[in-house]
Amino acid sequence: MNDDSPFVRSADRVRFRQEKMAKCGLFATERMFCDVYALLPGQSQRLHRHDASDKIYFCLHGEVVATVGDESRTLHPGDAAHSAPGTEHGLRNDSDAPAQVVVFMSPPPHHG
Amino acid sequence: MNDDSPFVRSADRVRFRQEKMAKCGLFATERMFCDVYALLPGQSQRLHRHDASDKIYFCLHGEVVATVGDESRTLHPGDAAHSAPGTEHGLRNDSDAPAQVVVFMSPPPHHG
Repeated sequence: MNDDSPFVRSADRVRFRQEKMAKCGLFATERMFCDVYALLPGQSQRLHRHDASDKIYFCLHGEVVATVGDESRTLHPGDAAHSAPGTEHGLRNDSDAPAQVVVFMSPPPHHG
Repeated sequence: MNDDSPFVRSADRVRFRQEKMAKCGLFATERMFCDVYALLPGQSQRLHRHDASDKIYFCLHGEVVATVGDESRTLHPGDAAHSAPGTEHGLRNDSDAPAQVVVFMSPPPHHG
């Protein structure tokens, strides 16, 4: 995924998919990953949880509704949400425009 | 730092400091932290390294020169850099405008 360069332009990696939310990888190591999730209007990441990982959603473009535990909020650019281990979380784009969310997760799945 | 809410607006946390680059905390756990670094023109984070941590710089506003190992690049919004454990890295704002960089580090210092 990293093709060995420490520098990445997210605009070069982001590709929207008509069929579902796209996960566009920027960096991944055994300790963490950093992706950009690309959500067309109506697309979502269903609620799920990770037993041992922190995840951060950081809204980059557009707006998305983030759910963490019992709470849902609309994130605009610069807004962020944190899901602790064991907490249910997800995203959905209820707007009429594409959205991009930077996602950090530590440790990555299958290493936690 | 988290005041227990899983939701944070980075605009509410970012404060520029005249005397040096400001580290504005968004989230921190024992596995990772996520800050926004706020750099006025001329401010920098000197080159340094972490023996056991990954760090990501993700440019949010303005432009900064990121150095990772032997390479330096100007990051614009949406551009990112990854520094692996043991690799020297730093930032400087050589522009004439304020800059903001989202920083993700895993594991955090003193837990690595």
